[in-house]
Amino acid sequence: MAKLRFRISISLDGYVAGPNQSVKEPLGEGGERLHEWVFGTRWWKQMQGESGGEENPSSAVAAETFQNVGASIMGRNMFGGHPGPWNPAKPWTGWWGAEPPYHHPVFVLTHHPREPLEMEGGTTFYFVTEGIVSALQQAKKAAGNKDISIHGGAKTIQQYLAAGHVDELQLSIAPMLLAGGERLLDNVNGRNIRLEHLRTLATPEATHVKYRVIT
Amino acid sequence: MAKLRFRISISLDGYVAGPNQSVKEPLGEGGERLHEWVFGTRWWKQMQGESGGEENPSSAVAAETFQNVGASIMGRNMFGGHPGPWNPAKPWTGWWGAEPPYHHPVFVLTHHPREPLEMEGGTTFYFVTEGIVSALQQAKKAAGNKDISIHGGAKTIQQYLAAGHVDELQLSIAPMLLAGGERLLDNVNGRNIRLEHLRTLATPEATHVKYRVIT
Repeated sequence: MAKLRFRISISLDGYVAGPNQSVKEPLGEGGERLHEWVFGTRWWKQMQGESGGEENPSSAVAAETFQNVGASIMGRNMFGGHPGPWNPAKPWTGWWGAEPPYHHPVFVLTHHPREPLEMEGGTTFYFVTEGIVSALQQAKKAAGNKDISIHGGAKTIQQYLAAGHVDELQLSIAPMLLAGGERLLDNVNGRNIRLEHLRTLATPEATHVKYRVIT
Repeated sequence: MAKLRFRISISLDGYVAGPNQSVKEPLGEGGERLHEWVFGTRWWKQMQGESGGEENPSSAVAAETFQNVGASIMGRNMFGGHPGPWNPAKPWTGWWGAEPPYHHPVFVLTHHPREPLEMEGGTTFYFVTEGIVSALQQAKKAAGNKDISIHGGAKTIQQYLAAGHVDELQLSIAPMLLAGGERLLDNVNGRNIRLEHLRTLATPEATHVKYRVIT
């Protein structure tokens, strides 16, 4: 059964981005450190076309990010805030470079209609202006029997959690406090969400806790 | 080297008590579920004078609560809010019954001076009105070479964290959201706190993450 799931890196005090997010610092002050656990993994090195890297529980978790995922959903800021003056001759194609790591259809929640944007390597960004349910329906159709991954940011995840659409979530808890920024598990109607623990994996850099949402 | 440490049960969204705490519901609405992981452990059964219970990672974590602890510190509400009209003939002795589980000196932060209260089994409550540093000094003296445990609540822990006194912390993360109540890791000057991961242990009922505070 295809699942709607997400995995996200989070500080011990619950933030997925630090304060004062900007185009220069999209993860806010201190927010990049949330992802340090991934940089040493074999999976990350492979993604960069490098060899080496550690094969450890964090590597296994990272590798699952795109495993059995047939479509992704993300918010407008996750696609990429525009870093400079608008140039119609060179439309902005997001943070993700010419060949984004998805290799499947990605549905971007936005208020601005735009034609689909086909990138190299099988990733096409579709811009959805009709809200989260429409994006989910389109993603399900595109994913077939595979899972759908919500890639963030916090507000997008919150909307799907609050509406009861999420089947599985994994938090990669980094050993740090951010003391401000974007908190993940606020505004999600939390007392109505029941969770079943599926797995805990840990390295010194992150503790990965995975839960099923009980419906 | 004697450490100042605490272990506390916490929801996935960071609360150590639910909303609307009262004398009847000292842990707030839904807050008791934070501690469900402990009730099935062998350690808990033994505390209750019962046999059985599971010997699992949660049991090991629970057993450490009082291991090598020579003194404890707690806030006034943790000692116990007074549940009824004041009766000078029968002074209130807290939540903890005639023989509290500490079996060592316990320093209670309060604004109300009171003579020490000696209970059965080696627990004496000392009431400290001079603030957290004084309580820590007294506890250190009482503990000798053993550790000092902060037993809560959140505000007491926050004060010691913010002031840089804590050496080690362990969070027992329960698979649930409280969506309100008392949050642990707010107001702790968090971006100045550097943590080193020491250990992760897990059962389906809780994920226990232990960190050293780097000074």
